[in-house]
Amino acid sequence: MASPAELAAMRRAIELSLNGASTTPPNPDVGCVILDATGATVGEGWHEHAGGPHAEVNALVEAGERARGGTAVVTLEPCDHTGRTGPCTQALIAAGVARVVVAVADPNPVAAGGAATLRAGGVDVEVGVLSDEAATANARWLTPFRTHRPFVVWKFAATLDGRSAAADGTSRWITGAEARADVHRLRAAVDTVIVGSGTVRADDPQLTARLDGEAADVGGASSRAGGRVVDQPLRVVVDSAGTTPATARVRDGRAETWIATADEVGATPDGRVDLARLLDRLYARGRRYVLLEGGPTLAGAFWRAGLIDRVVGYVAPALLGAGPAALADAGVNTIDAAIRLDVADVRMVGPDLRITATPQVNRKA
Amino acid sequence: MASPAELAAMRRAIELSLNGASTTPPNPDVGCVILDATGATVGEGWHEHAGGPHAEVNALVEAGERARGGTAVVTLEPCDHTGRTGPCTQALIAAGVARVVVAVADPNPVAAGGAATLRAGGVDVEVGVLSDEAATANARWLTPFRTHRPFVVWKFAATLDGRSAAADGTSRWITGAEARADVHRLRAAVDTVIVGSGTVRADDPQLTARLDGEAADVGGASSRAGGRVVDQPLRVVVDSAGTTPATARVRDGRAETWIATADEVGATPDGRVDLARLLDRLYARGRRYVLLEGGPTLAGAFWRAGLIDRVVGYVAPALLGAGPAALADAGVNTIDAAIRLDVADVRMVGPDLRITATPQVNRKA
Repeated sequence: MASPAELAAMRRAIELSLNGASTTPPNPDVGCVILDATGATVGEGWHEHAGGPHAEVNALVEAGERARGGTAVVTLEPCDHTGRTGPCTQALIAAGVARVVVAVADPNPVAAGGAATLRAGGVDVEVGVLSDEAATANARWLTPFRTHRPFVVWKFAATLDGRSAAADGTSRWITGAEARADVHRLRAAVDTVIVGSGTVRADDPQLTARLDGEAADVGGASSRAGGRVVDQPLRVVVDSAGTTPATARVRDGRAETWIATADEVGATPDGRVDLARLLDRLYARGRRYVLLEGGPTLAGAFWRAGLIDRVVGYVAPALLGAGPAALADAGVNTIDAAIRLDVADVRMVGPDLRITATPQVNRKA
Repeated sequence: MASPAELAAMRRAIELSLNGASTTPPNPDVGCVILDATGATVGEGWHEHAGGPHAEVNALVEAGERARGGTAVVTLEPCDHTGRTGPCTQALIAAGVARVVVAVADPNPVAAGGAATLRAGGVDVEVGVLSDEAATANARWLTPFRTHRPFVVWKFAATLDGRSAAADGTSRWITGAEARADVHRLRAAVDTVIVGSGTVRADDPQLTARLDGEAADVGGASSRAGGRVVDQPLRVVVDSAGTTPATARVRDGRAETWIATADEVGATPDGRVDLARLLDRLYARGRRYVLLEGGPTLAGAFWRAGLIDRVVGYVAPALLGAGPAALADAGVNTIDAAIRLDVADVRMVGPDLRITATPQVNRKA
C-alpha cells in the first residue's frame, strides 16, 4: 500500500505531468517524483517534449545518488522499450531504486511490460495508486487506446453572452492576442484540425500552428516557429458535398489537407459526413488527437454523435446581444437534456477567460 | 506621503472592505488597518453590516492600547456624525491615533467633514492614497453620489454557450443550488430588483430574497431569513403597456412592488418605459442599488441606454445549442461596437462559474 508520502508525491507527479500538455504529444504526459530512502523528495521531472528524456530520467538526474534505495513515484508505468530514448526500466534499476509506485499501467503494447521487468530486476512495484486522477490528467493520450478513435477537443471562442460573431457576421477579433496565441499552441499539440466547409467558405482559415503569430515563417508540413519545430496538424474539412473552393487557404500546401466528403467517408441518413466513420478513418491513419474548430453546426453534429472528449472555450468579456451562437443544433430540446460538463480548469488568458471542461457522461461507444 | 507600510496596509484595508459586500448596504464597504508607532499591524476591521460598528471601531478594538501614537489606514474618510453608531473621528482621537491615512473622501454631505475634525483634534491626515483602487472596491456606494442614479448590477444565468433557456423554454435549473443561493444574497444586498413584464408573464418570479431557500418564512417587507433580518428589495416590473396580471406573484404583498408603466414614468419614442427616467424616479425615492434580473430584451434596453454599472454572470458548465440568449438587442451590429468589459472576479459557485465584470467605458451621463 502506498504511504502518505508516496500519495503526496503522486499528487505532485500528476501536477508535474500537466506541464507538458502542449509539447509532449504524440507522447503521453508523465510526471515523476523520486523519494530517497527516508521518504524525502530528492528529484522531480516531467516529460517535456516528444523525443526528449522521459519523466523518470529527468527526475533521476536531479536525484543523483540519493535515488539509491529510494522510491520512484510515476504517473504512468515506466516504458520497457528503446524508442528515441532508452527504456526507463533500465534507468531505474541502474539508479538503484528499491521501489516504484505507478498510477496507470501502460496500455501501449509497444512500451508495456515495464512493471514485470522492474520486478524481475528486484524492484518492488505497486500499480494503481491514484489511477483515476492520473488517468484524467493523461486522458488525451489514454482515451484512444480504449475508444480506438482520436481524442477530440472542441474549441470555441465567444462573448460572455455566447456569440461567436456579431449580427453583421464580423468576428475579428472577439478574443485577444493572448487567446489566439493559445489556440496556436493547441494546434501545435494536436495532430489533426477539423473544420466544416461553412467555416472555410466564411473565414478561409489557414489552420496551421503559428507560434510566432501571423508573421511566422511556415513552410511545408514541419516548420520552425516560436523557436521549436512544429509538426503541422493534418487539416480536415468536413465537406459533405465537396464544395471547398480550389483557392481555399487550407489547400495552400503548407500542411497536409483532407477534404472529407460524404462520398468518400460514408454518409448519415441525411446525407452528411458520418463523423464516427471520419474519426475511425483518422485513427486508422495514426491520428490520435483532434482539435475541432467549428463552426457551430459541425460542433452540434459532433455533440449529437457523442464524439467530444473535452471543451476548451475562450470567453471574451464582451457582449453583443445578437449574432450567431458558438453552438447550434446539438440535439437538445429541453433543459433536462442539457449536455452537462465538469469544469476542469478556468484561467485568464490575457483579458479573456479560458474554460476547460469535460462531458459528465462518457461519450457514446 | 504614504509610507510603503501604509500603502501595504491600504491594500489590505481594501481587501478587508470587500468582506462586507453583501451585508453592508445601504452603507459603504469600508476596511481599516491600524499600524502601531513602529508601523506594525495591530488591528484590522471592516464594516460588517449596516447598523453595526464601523470598520475603524472594529480595528481599534483589536488594536487596543497599541493604537496610541499609531496610524489608522482606512478606505473611506472616517465619519463625523452620530448615526446608528457614534462618529469614528471621536473614536480615533480618543484612541490616541497620531495619523490617519484615507483613500477616498466621503462624498456624503451628512457624514463628511471627518478629515477636518481629525485635524482640529491634532491628528495628521492624508487623503487620496490608492483612491482609484478603493473607489473601485466601493463603486456600488460611491457611484450614485456622482451619477444621481442607483448603481445597476445586471445579473444573468446562462449555459457556457450563452443560452438562458432551452429550445422548449424550460430553464429550471440551468445553474445549481449554490448559484441560486448566491442570487438570493445579492437580492438581500440591493434595495431594488427590476424585471421586465415578459419575465413576469413567463416565469412568475417572487423576486424576494430568501436566504434559507424556498422554504424561508418570509412575511412583510422585512423578514428574518438565514438568521438575519432582510429588508426585502423593492420589486419593479418594467411594464410599458401595464399588462402584469393581477395574480402575478410580484403582487403578493411580501415586499413592496412598483409596476412601472410608460404612462407613469414617461416613454421613449418607441413607446417603451424611459429607463433613465425610471432610475431617476428610483433615486428620488431613495433607492441606490439595483439588481436587474432580466429578461434579455430589458437587459438589451438597459445596455442601449448605457445604464449598467456591473455584470454578474452565472455560467453553468452545460451546453444547449438552441434556445434564447441571455442578452438580446443591445444595439450592437458589428464586432468593433461590442460592449467590452473588464473581468473583476471569477470564481466557482458550486459547479457553476460566477463572472463579475464592469463596462470599460463609463456609462452615458
